[in-house]
Amino acid sequence: MFLRNCWYVAAWDYELIDGRLITRTLLDDHVLLYRGDNGQVVALHDRCPHRGALLSKGRREGDSVRCMYHGLRFDATGHCTQIPGQDMIPPKLRVRSYPVVERNHLVWIWMGDAAAADPSQIVDFPYLSDPRWKGIPDYLHYDANYLLIMDNLSDFAHLAFVHTKTLGGSEEYAFVTKPVAIERLERGFRVERWHMGSDAPPFHRKVIPDKTAKVDRRNIANMYIPGIFYMETMFGPAGQGADQGNLQGARQYRNCQFMTPETGRTTHFFWAYLNDFEGDDVNISRSLHASLIEGFMEDKAIIERQQVTLDEDPTFQMLAIAADAPLAHFRRVLGKLIDAETAGTHSQAAAAKVAQTQSDKPKQAQAGTAPG
Amino acid sequence: MFLRNCWYVAAWDYELIDGRLITRTLLDDHVLLYRGDNGQVVALHDRCPHRGALLSKGRREGDSVRCMYHGLRFDATGHCTQIPGQDMIPPKLRVRSYPVVERNHLVWIWMGDAAAADPSQIVDFPYLSDPRWKGIPDYLHYDANYLLIMDNLSDFAHLAFVHTKTLGGSEEYAFVTKPVAIERLERGFRVERWHMGSDAPPFHRKVIPDKTAKVDRRNIANMYIPGIFYMETMFGPAGQGADQGNLQGARQYRNCQFMTPETGRTTHFFWAYLNDFEGDDVNISRSLHASLIEGFMEDKAIIERQQVTLDEDPTFQMLAIAADAPLAHFRRVLGKLIDAETAGTHSQAAAAKVAQTQSDKPKQAQAGTAPG
Amino acid sequence: MFLRNCWYVAAWDYELIDGRLITRTLLDDHVLLYRGDNGQVVALHDRCPHRGALLSKGRREGDSVRCMYHGLRFDATGHCTQIPGQDMIPPKLRVRSYPVVERNHLVWIWMGDAAAADPSQIVDFPYLSDPRWKGIPDYLHYDANYLLIMDNLSDFAHLAFVHTKTLGGSEEYAFVTKPVAIERLERGFRVERWHMGSDAPPFHRKVIPDKTAKVDRRNIANMYIPGIFYMETMFGPAGQGADQGNLQGARQYRNCQFMTPETGRTTHFFWAYLNDFEGDDVNISRSLHASLIEGFMEDKAIIERQQVTLDEDPTFQMLAIAADAPLAHFRRVLGKLIDAETAGTHSQAAAAKVAQTQSDKPKQAQAGTAPG
Repeated sequence: MFLRNCWYVAAWDYELIDGRLITRTLLDDHVLLYRGDNGQVVALHDRCPHRGALLSKGRREGDSVRCMYHGLRFDATGHCTQIPGQDMIPPKLRVRSYPVVERNHLVWIWMGDAAAADPSQIVDFPYLSDPRWKGIPDYLHYDANYLLIMDNLSDFAHLAFVHTKTLGGSEEYAFVTKPVAIERLERGFRVERWHMGSDAPPFHRKVIPDKTAKVDRRNIANMYIPGIFYMETMFGPAGQGADQGNLQGARQYRNCQFMTPETGRTTHFFWAYLNDFEGDDVNISRSLHASLIEGFMEDKAIIERQQVTLDEDPTFQMLAIAADAPLAHFRRVLGKLIDAETAGTHSQAAAAKVAQTQSDKPKQAQAGTAPG
Repeated sequence: MFLRNCWYVAAWDYELIDGRLITRTLLDDHVLLYRGDNGQVVALHDRCPHRGALLSKGRREGDSVRCMYHGLRFDATGHCTQIPGQDMIPPKLRVRSYPVVERNHLVWIWMGDAAAADPSQIVDFPYLSDPRWKGIPDYLHYDANYLLIMDNLSDFAHLAFVHTKTLGGSEEYAFVTKPVAIERLERGFRVERWHMGSDAPPFHRKVIPDKTAKVDRRNIANMYIPGIFYMETMFGPAGQGADQGNLQGARQYRNCQFMTPETGRTTHFFWAYLNDFEGDDVNISRSLHASLIEGFMEDKAIIERQQVTLDEDPTFQMLAIAADAPLAHFRRVLGKLIDAETAGTHSQAAAAKVAQTQSDKPKQAQAGTAPG
Repeated sequence: MFLRNCWYVAAWDYELIDGRLITRTLLDDHVLLYRGDNGQVVALHDRCPHRGALLSKGRREGDSVRCMYHGLRFDATGHCTQIPGQDMIPPKLRVRSYPVVERNHLVWIWMGDAAAADPSQIVDFPYLSDPRWKGIPDYLHYDANYLLIMDNLSDFAHLAFVHTKTLGGSEEYAFVTKPVAIERLERGFRVERWHMGSDAPPFHRKVIPDKTAKVDRRNIANMYIPGIFYMETMFGPAGQGADQGNLQGARQYRNCQFMTPETGRTTHFFWAYLNDFEGDDVNISRSLHASLIEGFMEDKAIIERQQVTLDEDPTFQMLAIAADAPLAHFRRVLGKLIDAETAGTHSQAAAAKVAQTQSDKPKQAQAGTAPG
């Protein structure tokens, strides 16, 4: 069960260069994505309504796409505009189209009721278009439900044990540091955690000149519905008063991660890890990119095995510890939104049923029976 | 749900050389096939009734087969004729045998009620034994229901888009040509389609001396229950009046394809593509064989993906276009035959139940309890 | 449905050297096994109760294990003894531990009610610790239910057909020899079979100096609940009166095989094949080890295919022959024990329900809600 009336990241813009057709399963729907000649990104259900062939195996023609099984052509709104060898086009021969918005190199898609799609609800991450922040956007695929990844991100304590030699730095982190603030938001939460006078963690140590100097480290994570993670990380010289606002000589990172459900047990994971200090040294981005993938792989092994555990025993009830408070809040907020949406769909369906009963609409032709 | 009381192709005869045992799943039954010393092809359920071992992993002995788990031997009718170390053979220790007919290099099998098996119902394709027609018989395996392959064959329009560069020749074919006749048969249909003054399609161009001469092309397809496709193809010199009966200088093909269900979502595909003009140049058969496989692979990719689409969403209702009329007729006829067979089986089962209640037959020994 | 209140072999002791953590699925439970610093083998449910991570991916600390997701530590009894960053440890945060007994290089585990675990019920095989008997213990994995392997072992007749060229020697064995005794035991059976004046079977011929001398062969198999096979094999010089007790010049083997269910369709197979005559020639053990694996692979192919047959058609009822009497007895005895255990569990559950209703126990905290 997914929240459908919200924006999900469907792709990075670089995936749609040169007008190519890509297919991506989102919330269990197969979606065809391409940029038409007019520059707009098109999102259509990736299934020809005639015989079910994939439109993504077809051919783009301007802003349209032609199915290469029997040659039917569909425009950007999903209407069929040509059937070779047949003049009349049945109006019901159409595919679903999805609202799409492009912003800061991300392609956002609305998988629910198109009439409700409001671009102002997109939670923006402007650093992706800001030349002061450098980094390499990328993608990972997870064999796990997206919420297991959100759970993982919600608790900094796992840095100590999972990422000791990559992103974390020491097991001490779990024992001596605590969140200084956990703020419950209407559609997510914010957590802030400091580690004073610590060694620089391995991923950071690789890209700074002084490998041994102690640092004061601050992580601020913001997590939003449905599966968005934004983190601001700051490393200041130890003891200089970064926690009092003195950021001189500090190095900062901006990290975005977008968990978009592919299915109930697989996830698209779009991410970028930006820094504000590489200047002309592009190798810093490259090193950070490699370090983050190394760390993500550590998470991935655990999270994908969690999914297997839940597949094997769906009755398994996890037991919470104190550090799970943000996670619990997030799941509660999301659950309420899904419940509300489901209730709305049911009342809409009921209303539609009444309307249909009262109308004189002729019955639609049966599928499988040929008109001619 | 398959039609069982009809003939299916089970194998090419060349597969049974040298008395070897082959196993093939047909309509969800595992079937053992072999040629006995007496020259007759034997078809038995490929499962020893004792402990379920595969008889196809056993050893042929004359017209019989011996299970190589505990040594039980079965004759060509499926009766057990030896149990090592045991004198008495329980009569119920037998395997099902299936009626088989060999004709024109094809092994036909009857998967239904053996008493109803009538060889005169086989729809023959005598070209396979006619020395004027040359070609290489072959086999493909499909991960798709056999009817999706029949659907594909029923509409020549797909030649234009799927096979443009192999069997088709141009997208024009879909726009400018139409069937000149669609004949509904009691157990199938016949479609005829002409393309006048066209370029020779690639597969044909490769095997003729004059690559640029225009041709008049005629395809006549006959499709029969349960999954039989026979096509006659003629290429005559353009404008000479082939459509008036002048076939001088024409080159012809005879194509047979047999779709036998392996399971509900996989299919055995037996085929041959014969020509009447190669004379002593066997490379013509070889080139045609390669061209056809190239074309079949184009179909296979689409059809197997259709199967996945239906697996994923069994509620998907395809929408018909005008060109689907033959397909719709075929499915309607087949559906009626299956319904009739199912109804017959039920009434037979009911009758059998009455008979059994009235008899004094002793109870059969329970499986798993040893007699000695 | 497994019998749980009995001892199964979980591992060979050599698998637990150097304190390493191994994970093994037993009767559908994932079990973590390791030897603590105190020398005792520990068996815990391999799932952290916090977020479900595998404890076997964690780190052993003395007799304890630490989950390497968020750092929770559990002792050998399964109690949580540390949560990094949190002082209070909820008592319900614990994992199941299983009774374990080490004996003669085997690690036995009790998968049922721990209070009922009685080490005196272990059916011992002391040859494994006796220096007069030499051999190499080993392990095979089967994609088949463990009872199909027991079935296979219960009938010597399959030696003739499955193992003609390895462990058996001739098809004659099935026709001319019979069990001289089949003894039904309370928890198993005993079968004895002689083959007088025969050729030595291939596995034995490889390790004796006189390849052509005839032998009198005696096999005595004992099979015990739940999946234990012990066989004593004797080869005496033919005609010397081994059947009258004259064992001069005889060579003997002791064979143990332990079939422990991994799941309902997969099995752990622990085995050793010991001889009493190799003296200092360790190559005899090595040859026998290789011969036995060769023979087991012949069984494995058949048995794993049987499992597929049963998966495909769960209604398949095997038909017994005379040789299946021991097998049928074994299955009957096991079935009664499982029925009794199931009935006991139900009445215990009913009793527990009454007890719980009468108690004033406070409700346990809901999983997924954080305490802090």
